[in-house]
Amino acid sequence: MAISRAECVALDAADPLKQIRDEFVLPDGTIYLVGNSLGAPPKAAAAAVARTVEQEWGGRLVGAWNVSGWYDLPLTTGDRIAPLIGVGPGQVAVGESTSIAIVKAVSAALGLRPERRVVVSDLANFPTDRYMVQGLAEALGGYEIRDVTGVDDLSGALSEDVACVLLSEVDYRTGARHDTAAVTALVQAAGALMIWDLCHSAGAYQVDVSAADLAVGCTYKYLNGGPGSPAFVYVHPDHQAAGRHLLTGWHGHAEPFAFEPDFRPAEGIRRFTVSTPHVVSYAPLNASLDIWEHVDLAAVRAKSVALTSLFIELVEELCAPHGLGLLSPRDPERRGSQVSFSHPDGYPVMRALIDRGVHGDFRAPDVLRFGFAPLYIRFVDVYDAAVTLAEVLEKESWRDDRYSRRLAVT
Amino acid sequence: MAISRAECVALDAADPLKQIRDEFVLPDGTIYLVGNSLGAPPKAAAAAVARTVEQEWGGRLVGAWNVSGWYDLPLTTGDRIAPLIGVGPGQVAVGESTSIAIVKAVSAALGLRPERRVVVSDLANFPTDRYMVQGLAEALGGYEIRDVTGVDDLSGALSEDVACVLLSEVDYRTGARHDTAAVTALVQAAGALMIWDLCHSAGAYQVDVSAADLAVGCTYKYLNGGPGSPAFVYVHPDHQAAGRHLLTGWHGHAEPFAFEPDFRPAEGIRRFTVSTPHVVSYAPLNASLDIWEHVDLAAVRAKSVALTSLFIELVEELCAPHGLGLLSPRDPERRGSQVSFSHPDGYPVMRALIDRGVHGDFRAPDVLRFGFAPLYIRFVDVYDAAVTLAEVLEKESWRDDRYSRRLAVT
Repeated sequence: MAISRAECVALDAADPLKQIRDEFVLPDGTIYLVGNSLGAPPKAAAAAVARTVEQEWGGRLVGAWNVSGWYDLPLTTGDRIAPLIGVGPGQVAVGESTSIAIVKAVSAALGLRPERRVVVSDLANFPTDRYMVQGLAEALGGYEIRDVTGVDDLSGALSEDVACVLLSEVDYRTGARHDTAAVTALVQAAGALMIWDLCHSAGAYQVDVSAADLAVGCTYKYLNGGPGSPAFVYVHPDHQAAGRHLLTGWHGHAEPFAFEPDFRPAEGIRRFTVSTPHVVSYAPLNASLDIWEHVDLAAVRAKSVALTSLFIELVEELCAPHGLGLLSPRDPERRGSQVSFSHPDGYPVMRALIDRGVHGDFRAPDVLRFGFAPLYIRFVDVYDAAVTLAEVLEKESWRDDRYSRRLAVT
Repeated sequence: MAISRAECVALDAADPLKQIRDEFVLPDGTIYLVGNSLGAPPKAAAAAVARTVEQEWGGRLVGAWNVSGWYDLPLTTGDRIAPLIGVGPGQVAVGESTSIAIVKAVSAALGLRPERRVVVSDLANFPTDRYMVQGLAEALGGYEIRDVTGVDDLSGALSEDVACVLLSEVDYRTGARHDTAAVTALVQAAGALMIWDLCHSAGAYQVDVSAADLAVGCTYKYLNGGPGSPAFVYVHPDHQAAGRHLLTGWHGHAEPFAFEPDFRPAEGIRRFTVSTPHVVSYAPLNASLDIWEHVDLAAVRAKSVALTSLFIELVEELCAPHGLGLLSPRDPERRGSQVSFSHPDGYPVMRALIDRGVHGDFRAPDVLRFGFAPLYIRFVDVYDAAVTLAEVLEKESWRDDRYSRRLAVT
């Protein structure tokens, strides 16, 4: 084999991020390669929610809106996410879900380019991104959604009636990563606005969308904010004064507690907040952001590249005869922190693998996904995962009937 | 005085709901008359969030989406709210905020009445209800928002181009309560759809919107779901097949895990869900709904009427010379579970009162609000609150400078 288990143990011992793993809850016997779907809990998350529920809500009741900083959570939390995506304070608002953030971003973009009536969307975008744009365009009327297939298709699609382009920085199925700077420049050169979906990149490496117009992202994957933790929207400072979006709730009002009859947008990023934040769901997210404050993002990227490259190398070496096809780019520059393989029986293969303690996930029709969250995944996990996958394929363990029964959530 | 403190103690001893108070966290020395803004925490809320974070997220990681029922939380939680608003299972979807629920309800209503281009909105509606309709109408174009001032104005506004009417069942400032059945019938007779906002009524008494077309409401007031707990939308079964709304996220898709490129709505109420639920924020809400399962709603209403009537009586008796004006209806049939008084110096009066342990709140320009959550407010609390308010006014304690400094959240 390309590497021994002992060599992996040595790599872990030399890992500059190795102590950060201790900050996370990782059940014994589990190799958790699903941090690209739901990040592992920070150990501090439990105490954080207990503090919010018992001390803040229980101790101060409604007074906590002032005393405990609840009211400003969307902005204070946004300012903590900002450095992870390469932007400054006052540029990120947290709240709701990525789907809702897409409505904010796209409706703002359409307002900023009122003469242009086309939204470009990628067939590789995560489906909810597409669905939200479809729902919005159908409701607004008079808009065209122009689908592209990957970035190669983009130049041809950028006619002068394109208002904005919405792309996922990292493909949720393949882990393929766009050249964000080049694509942003291309889109902006055509007079359109660039909106990035950072769901599969924020926390996977040092994102930089400072040149982009808008961005959205979730916080429950590599950012470890907890199941359904609130999402974020980034708005370039140049667009904040003119940027208006559809979801004009009272927290985005210039004076929410004046209870005026008509909407008047707040200055700055606050106008991209909508309403009462889901306070309890912010607690684990902020516990995770406490960890991120001390993380070297260059080390995260270096480790991510090493982990994913090693996994590709080992799986290809060990599993070559068993019908796996690499879906992720070989060039680490073009790859997020995820490796995907196709397999015609991907679903039962993944179920069998999970049954043996190696947790990846499956995406229709045939995609086995493995996420490598650099904060808590070790080289030895990569080794053990590849060996276990090889055993499942070699022994055809996945043919057991119980692995083909579909669960509600795949 | 109309009643003695000892008589209030006796009323509490005879209260059929008296044991339910023990299920809530209420700090010593606090008379909490703000349950109409943020309900008190159920004692079980802390254990519920700990279970979600430690056992479910920490113990099962991403597998909890299946094993712990996370995926269906919007619908299972909705089915638990349904009996509190007089409707059946499969009619309520939980998620996001009331503001977002308004976009779902109003955009669905507009789709169901495509020939009609007017939305009727009350100037007494909570501002975010108005703001969301304004943002939606501006984005869609071609719609008129017709403002009415209370229900007396409504008949004249119901021309044949009205698609829907959005009203708050209980006025957030005055506590005035609509005759829901009569108003619904009036609106529907004009061919329009009736949308009720139940924020200040759900959990205050037995709501019944089964004849209405749509409804929205929050869960963090009388329902005690916790700060920013998710909101709900009700859709009458007759409208579910044809009802389409603007926020077409993947959880509302017929097959979310097929990852199809185009949106196709799920059957039934599920299409009114959008995306990944804020799982941690559902935990306290479901802890509260465990309590509600065993509550006699007729007893809630009877106690609410008794508490609010007694408070009006005592305050008017004790505070008559001090410039308070009753804003709430005297007829208990027309009143929610809230009593409001105007006072020209309402803000410092409320601050002084809170400083003495009686927590109400203030709404601009001059409204002192007192909410009486029947699950945990006692008759003796009503007595003590009225006596304390009288003292603050009598001694003019509110003239202390520190009470006029405005807090961020009022």
